[in-house]
Amino acid sequence: MNGNRTIGILGGMGPLATADLYHKIILATPARRDQDHLHVIIDADPTIPDRSAALRGEGPDALPGLLASARRLQLAGADFITIPCNTAHAFLPALRPHLGVPVLDMIAATADRVLADFPAARRVGILAYRGTIETGLYHHALRDRGLEPLSPSPEDQRRLVDAAIDGVKANDTGPAMGALLAEAGGTLVAAGAEVLLAACTEIPIVLTPAMVPAPLLDPTRVLAEAAVREARAPALTAPAFVAGAGG
Amino acid sequence: MNGNRTIGILGGMGPLATADLYHKIILATPARRDQDHLHVIIDADPTIPDRSAALRGEGPDALPGLLASARRLQLAGADFITIPCNTAHAFLPALRPHLGVPVLDMIAATADRVLADFPAARRVGILAYRGTIETGLYHHALRDRGLEPLSPSPEDQRRLVDAAIDGVKANDTGPAMGALLAEAGGTLVAAGAEVLLAACTEIPIVLTPAMVPAPLLDPTRVLAEAAVREARAPALTAPAFVAGAGG
Repeated sequence: MNGNRTIGILGGMGPLATADLYHKIILATPARRDQDHLHVIIDADPTIPDRSAALRGEGPDALPGLLASARRLQLAGADFITIPCNTAHAFLPALRPHLGVPVLDMIAATADRVLADFPAARRVGILAYRGTIETGLYHHALRDRGLEPLSPSPEDQRRLVDAAIDGVKANDTGPAMGALLAEAGGTLVAAGAEVLLAACTEIPIVLTPAMVPAPLLDPTRVLAEAAVREARAPALTAPAFVAGAGG
Repeated sequence: MNGNRTIGILGGMGPLATADLYHKIILATPARRDQDHLHVIIDADPTIPDRSAALRGEGPDALPGLLASARRLQLAGADFITIPCNTAHAFLPALRPHLGVPVLDMIAATADRVLADFPAARRVGILAYRGTIETGLYHHALRDRGLEPLSPSPEDQRRLVDAAIDGVKANDTGPAMGALLAEAGGTLVAAGAEVLLAACTEIPIVLTPAMVPAPLLDPTRVLAEAAVREARAPALTAPAFVAGAGG
């Protein structure tokens, strides 16, 4: 080991978003050669049930699968865990007490980043999967910081945002999916949003900042940068939330 | 688990090549939703010493680090292992007897693929890191199949190929790196190569088929497709080479 901490990625939700976070961690790492990079362990288990369906009570619970994956990461040597899936963050309060290592919170980190990078902004548009919207995770995190969340109409949510995200999950990363999201983002900006969140890990794969008329913040990039900082910090700064026995 | 096998990726050599293999595994998987994808576990340990230096006797042995990483993958549940690093394949004969799971051979799979996809080709150009060239891994695999390997002059190897690969390892994925590799590939085709191998996992990141005047075969893609086939097959087809006790 080279004195840095090992990053665990609890992935597979979906796989492309996992690959995207890993790629962004690599690019966020100051490195001149292989040996300068960080130790990353990824567990991408596709059998973790659909998080949105579980939260609506329409499918099997996702917690046991999330917990098993987190424990595999801990067993393999991860010093802390990142989860490149916004909706899965709804399970964080239930997950954390069972783990002996901290889990970084992508949603809190993103809301903090809005304040830091766009101090004049008041209204924040949320592009997210319906499961995330239904959990209210970003709404709460933004309101806690005095910001006003805006999200698409139910019709735009279904026809534009969810349709595009389902497309990316099925490996359709073409321009049509990005165009759907750009239309939804444009409507939010017209309604007053000064910043947009690409608050589903599949979105930044097809939607680029140039495609929308307001700054677009990518929570995956925010999480990648937080993970690199945490791995290289002299001491862990993330709260450990350790209540139960470590795996 | 969904009846498929779990793919282990022994990565970090370099990290971008690891992300590239994972991305290609996802794209090679027939999937409509997260749950259709394969279980992939990645261990990317940057402290594995430089493989080329180790093989030249100019640096610490890479075998202990490779073995530790393979054992972490096995412990976490990998049913077989893939290694997105050509040079590391020189350690395969030493690695395999210590593992209880098969390791896919990217180099043998690539040479087999040349025969299958380009049956008329006789001369194959090798674009690879100097460590891979020095091991003769591709030279042997091609000659074993009746093909004639061509590799760049020592001057082209240093000035074009190694320089570009070092650039990608340092996160320089811009067009200048691709141009260096395209020049080396063009020279090999002028010397008679009918097919080119992008035989270093960093190369396909910056060199696309359109940039060279002969078909360009990407061993990372060959390995990804082999891994998906192996994970979904009714029974493992890869030879297990199990001689020692499993981890």
